[in-house]
Amino acid sequence: MAKKAGVLGATGSVGQRFILLLSDHPDFELSALGASSRSAGKRYEDAVTWKQTSLLPESAKDLIVSECTYEAFKDCDVVFSGLDAEYAGPIEKEFRENGLAVVSNAKNYRREADVPLIVPIVNTDHLQVVETKLNAAKAKGEKRPGFIVCISNCSTAGLVAPLKPLVEKFGPIDLLTTTTLQAISGAGFSPGVSGIDVLDNIVPYISGEEDKIEWETKKILGGLNDAKDGFSILSDDEIKVSAQCNRVAVSDGHTECISLRFKTQNKPSVDEVKQCLKEYVCEAYKLGCHSAPKQTIHVLEQPDRPQPRLDRDRDAGYGVSVGRVREDPVLDFKMVVLSHNTIIGAAGAGILIAEILLKKGLI
Amino acid sequence: MAKKAGVLGATGSVGQRFILLLSDHPDFELSALGASSRSAGKRYEDAVTWKQTSLLPESAKDLIVSECTYEAFKDCDVVFSGLDAEYAGPIEKEFRENGLAVVSNAKNYRREADVPLIVPIVNTDHLQVVETKLNAAKAKGEKRPGFIVCISNCSTAGLVAPLKPLVEKFGPIDLLTTTTLQAISGAGFSPGVSGIDVLDNIVPYISGEEDKIEWETKKILGGLNDAKDGFSILSDDEIKVSAQCNRVAVSDGHTECISLRFKTQNKPSVDEVKQCLKEYVCEAYKLGCHSAPKQTIHVLEQPDRPQPRLDRDRDAGYGVSVGRVREDPVLDFKMVVLSHNTIIGAAGAGILIAEILLKKGLI
Amino acid sequence: MAKKAGVLGATGSVGQRFILLLSDHPDFELSALGASSRSAGKRYEDAVTWKQTSLLPESAKDLIVSECTYEAFKDCDVVFSGLDAEYAGPIEKEFRENGLAVVSNAKNYRREADVPLIVPIVNTDHLQVVETKLNAAKAKGEKRPGFIVCISNCSTAGLVAPLKPLVEKFGPIDLLTTTTLQAISGAGFSPGVSGIDVLDNIVPYISGEEDKIEWETKKILGGLNDAKDGFSILSDDEIKVSAQCNRVAVSDGHTECISLRFKTQNKPSVDEVKQCLKEYVCEAYKLGCHSAPKQTIHVLEQPDRPQPRLDRDRDAGYGVSVGRVREDPVLDFKMVVLSHNTIIGAAGAGILIAEILLKKGLI
Amino acid sequence: MAKKAGVLGATGSVGQRFILLLSDHPDFELSALGASSRSAGKRYEDAVTWKQTSLLPESAKDLIVSECTYEAFKDCDVVFSGLDAEYAGPIEKEFRENGLAVVSNAKNYRREADVPLIVPIVNTDHLQVVETKLNAAKAKGEKRPGFIVCISNCSTAGLVAPLKPLVEKFGPIDLLTTTTLQAISGAGFSPGVSGIDVLDNIVPYISGEEDKIEWETKKILGGLNDAKDGFSILSDDEIKVSAQCNRVAVSDGHTECISLRFKTQNKPSVDEVKQCLKEYVCEAYKLGCHSAPKQTIHVLEQPDRPQPRLDRDRDAGYGVSVGRVREDPVLDFKMVVLSHNTIIGAAGAGILIAEILLKKGLI
Repeated sequence: MAKKAGVLGATGSVGQRFILLLSDHPDFELSALGASSRSAGKRYEDAVTWKQTSLLPESAKDLIVSECTYEAFKDCDVVFSGLDAEYAGPIEKEFRENGLAVVSNAKNYRREADVPLIVPIVNTDHLQVVETKLNAAKAKGEKRPGFIVCISNCSTAGLVAPLKPLVEKFGPIDLLTTTTLQAISGAGFSPGVSGIDVLDNIVPYISGEEDKIEWETKKILGGLNDAKDGFSILSDDEIKVSAQCNRVAVSDGHTECISLRFKTQNKPSVDEVKQCLKEYVCEAYKLGCHSAPKQTIHVLEQPDRPQPRLDRDRDAGYGVSVGRVREDPVLDFKMVVLSHNTIIGAAGAGILIAEILLKKGLI
Repeated sequence: MAKKAGVLGATGSVGQRFILLLSDHPDFELSALGASSRSAGKRYEDAVTWKQTSLLPESAKDLIVSECTYEAFKDCDVVFSGLDAEYAGPIEKEFRENGLAVVSNAKNYRREADVPLIVPIVNTDHLQVVETKLNAAKAKGEKRPGFIVCISNCSTAGLVAPLKPLVEKFGPIDLLTTTTLQAISGAGFSPGVSGIDVLDNIVPYISGEEDKIEWETKKILGGLNDAKDGFSILSDDEIKVSAQCNRVAVSDGHTECISLRFKTQNKPSVDEVKQCLKEYVCEAYKLGCHSAPKQTIHVLEQPDRPQPRLDRDRDAGYGVSVGRVREDPVLDFKMVVLSHNTIIGAAGAGILIAEILLKKGLI
Repeated sequence: MAKKAGVLGATGSVGQRFILLLSDHPDFELSALGASSRSAGKRYEDAVTWKQTSLLPESAKDLIVSECTYEAFKDCDVVFSGLDAEYAGPIEKEFRENGLAVVSNAKNYRREADVPLIVPIVNTDHLQVVETKLNAAKAKGEKRPGFIVCISNCSTAGLVAPLKPLVEKFGPIDLLTTTTLQAISGAGFSPGVSGIDVLDNIVPYISGEEDKIEWETKKILGGLNDAKDGFSILSDDEIKVSAQCNRVAVSDGHTECISLRFKTQNKPSVDEVKQCLKEYVCEAYKLGCHSAPKQTIHVLEQPDRPQPRLDRDRDAGYGVSVGRVREDPVLDFKMVVLSHNTIIGAAGAGILIAEILLKKGLI
Repeated sequence: MAKKAGVLGATGSVGQRFILLLSDHPDFELSALGASSRSAGKRYEDAVTWKQTSLLPESAKDLIVSECTYEAFKDCDVVFSGLDAEYAGPIEKEFRENGLAVVSNAKNYRREADVPLIVPIVNTDHLQVVETKLNAAKAKGEKRPGFIVCISNCSTAGLVAPLKPLVEKFGPIDLLTTTTLQAISGAGFSPGVSGIDVLDNIVPYISGEEDKIEWETKKILGGLNDAKDGFSILSDDEIKVSAQCNRVAVSDGHTECISLRFKTQNKPSVDEVKQCLKEYVCEAYKLGCHSAPKQTIHVLEQPDRPQPRLDRDRDAGYGVSVGRVREDPVLDFKMVVLSHNTIIGAAGAGILIAEILLKKGLI
């Protein structure tokens, strides 16, 4: 039987995508929508300015929007949060304290020691922290505790996807640079990125983004610590990360020009790097998750690929494309990585995380 | 009295810009136009599909286009070449052999040991090779020899502009990376970049471009060798350069996210780097050249600048803008550099080079 | 059993879309590909520069491309032609003369008296000309004759879709104007529309397009003549059509601002116009064709719709969206029509025409 | 001596352009800046987020922004208002009541019987209403009265420019349609048009715009009534106007596809229409106004012009371009009109109006 799913921030950009992805999902059934008091009490169709390329799902039209209170979501097996960081803090906390499972796109709890920061094609092993917590409560006969799992920042998701198999195979990376060319959909639409800023233009700055990439990469590539209830975040001695972020006139799909150096002196060849990426199968696919990409990383051989318009929809946006793998005169290798920022980088990642939680028996 | 100027490849994208910049120039008078045999014999207005934002200058309309033979340009004091590399080789060679001064945008002779590769706000000292040659001929009572001066690749021009003063002040750079976001105007318009390739898209590849940046930087930042008739190009031991090039939906203005490491252990501060860039005055300005930028490098303090649409026209496109100077976790410093690719990166550079040649008595 | 389908011009823009739409089609099986002699003899994957957002179908990769000769296609039940008008004339003629059924996107035979010009959601009754011809041959015991069915121009398709039900219900239209804002995909990609022409720009001209809209509308809205072997094209006395065509920075989806006046003095109301459009069900859908839109015309009530990015994919691009239906101070009504130019306006229309031919027993 | 000029709404999009145009103006000296209380008291450089392609003029940097009270502007000879309609009403009224001359870009008073609605290359004769008012006060020995002159809506300005000479020469137009493709700069930048709305998209709607075009055209093309203190607005019997407005991905420059029918049966030829447009010289130019276009209307013969990127800057944006003049199967003639929306359609028009007021001795 389908699990009951709620969506917080349901009228916003991320919320709309959660609803779209849930509308014909085999595992979940949309059962509660939360938004601001301005929308509360209205039918969803009346509350939302729907701006997706697919029509508003029939199943969502008549749902009544409520305020983002725990009471309204208490029957949900999982709650997806598309709330702005401005509002997410106390709401998600209240939900967790009341035993709910929250999968959040907001940045508020990403740095917390016991909150997994998950890219669902990368570090699903970090969910063990949740498992440990649930098991401990069960062992003690306590009420099932709530928890928050955070979706990573969109540009981090694309970056770490190819890094994971490379580190697994060739050992630690000690230097990593990325220059991003980021799509505008990630910024939402009220107002989001101003048209005059991206028409015949580049904005070489996204507030807070470079910092997010630099530290999130260290948590996601880091391990679990001994206590199994927290993460060992990589230090600057273990990996130095440098990001330069640009906003460009692309609707969906973040392109990143990355460069990296392995710690090992025993460098792999370009072909070994490509082979490693091609062979990578994410755990979500092995678990049989509905949305998991059949091919996690698409390695492209054409010299001018990946391109956002042509390649962002691989595996419905859950696959990542890597092209132009070549030696780098400064570090070891450079390559171009493309990921769909609203799928594997935001709402879609949330859905796949929930599918994994379900397969692992955590919701 | 104005010097007579010729333009090769007059109907093309670069040729049109040469003509526009020459049309009301105080030092030069447009006197000969060369194009393919298809255009030869026609009035320029009839031969060209004019695609500039300024109207076709009245002074150019009635000039008769000739083929690109030496004979048709023998009275020119300087010849600007906007020829495609496919045709430039033998034509420019013939012109040089016949004693003409050629300023070329084509790549054909850039690597030659006695051909200066000039960014006119950067390495005007390299013109000494021409001066030495002319003086030697004069001393021997020989006929004045022809010569070729090459304009650098557009993306190299923006990159080396801030590097020059930094190297002068803080010593050699040993590691340098640049990720470019390049405008489409550089690719000309018949057909140039296809619309479908840049609409809602990025093309992470420009044929030959990364290689050009990597070696041209080494020649431009290199010195003159002892013999004064050639250049000492920096080796990989002296500077390692890595470029990643992207084509983006911008009409004019190349943005580059660069990162660099100085050889010295005695690192300057961010403020010292900015101060150094602000204080730089290019030789062309000191010489009083008409087109030289009053401010060679504009250092911007706003967090989201430079932006191509807003900043590309500083000092009529001859000034370069640098923003976001900050420390880099991987190398020493990172910053964003913006330059106008058709002005300081192509036709405009050619005009300023000719102005410098004139001030130095070389034409 | 699936019918055998061939594609002419298989490496081009329209050809690639035919192949994509045929790759998992229940009625057709891709069995022959034709292109220029440069491609002939190669595997399709090696011959094509694939530029679709979906991957090249596995089923097409290994097909060997042949030249566009009748011999290579003689086993095909239907041949889709994506040939340029420059080449289509003699090739399509040869195919027809040899008994093949050709569905062509080229303009060459659109004006012929016995060639139906079909928008598959509009004037499927015009296929009766083919039926009559086939039956006549059968009655005489002759060999089954070949025929050509032409797909309309892309901007005509969107325009006539709402006109058809309106004319059926409210009688003839005597004045009709359309100003189009056309996507660049229709122009193909070698080179297609130049990037510099559509970046921060509009091109208020598409060669031949206005004329096509003006006369094709008259043929498509016209009837069958008595002899059942030709069409009565509407005259200027019956309908005057005026088109103004613009190329805009949109990838897919033609927007048209249309205005019309009915001949009748008994004008319908805005609501009656909208109701009529909503109720229209195209014959293709009634026939149960696989690709026929469930909702032929989507009438949008939001004031700022339809928009190409949001609405072009209705019913997989086979549905047409109409918005802003309102009274017009000059004619009777104005409205905005959006159609997907490569689906209902080109390759997709060809596939749906073939489905209709199959349902009607004509292939 | 330069007249003192004030700018209301100085930090906004229109205000910034007023300041830029005034910064090196021979007739005016920038002396007062007004904005919201949030900005009041600050240096202009500190109050504004400058988003123009030219640098913030040195002369404006140190001006102290005041609130928009009459007191702060009482020494101004002319006040330019770039206020949003939301605020303009009471402020402009107060300024007028206190004897100030206001040139306003806001829509609030455009419909008032004694407020001229001026396109400065079109209907400068309407300023007689101001003259009559000032003379009457003078005759009575009263204090010089204040007045408001309104700038027209941006899309109206381009439309009426070619209509004026046509009506003067060939008599009244009875039917007029325009479909606009409007630039985003007109919508300001906080936030203005959202990027996601214009990337790979068209928005076929601009709130209130069609209505403005339809009635403003009637006032601007109308005459002065007998009493010389008001306007005779054309009725629906005299001219019917129909507009369809679209927002497109263009930074500056509104393109309009227009079609018109003259009342006369004695139709001019296409060549006569073009000749009439070419010969038109606006009164502002005859008066010797600094910003008046040398060529009011540029008639282009190339089939694919005017284009916004290439043609919007004719005569510094004060000239209007007209192309594709041809017969129309439905009305008499169709043509494409391009005008620079922020110059002749907004701030620039305000400056030129003030220059005319000055030449006419009205300020």
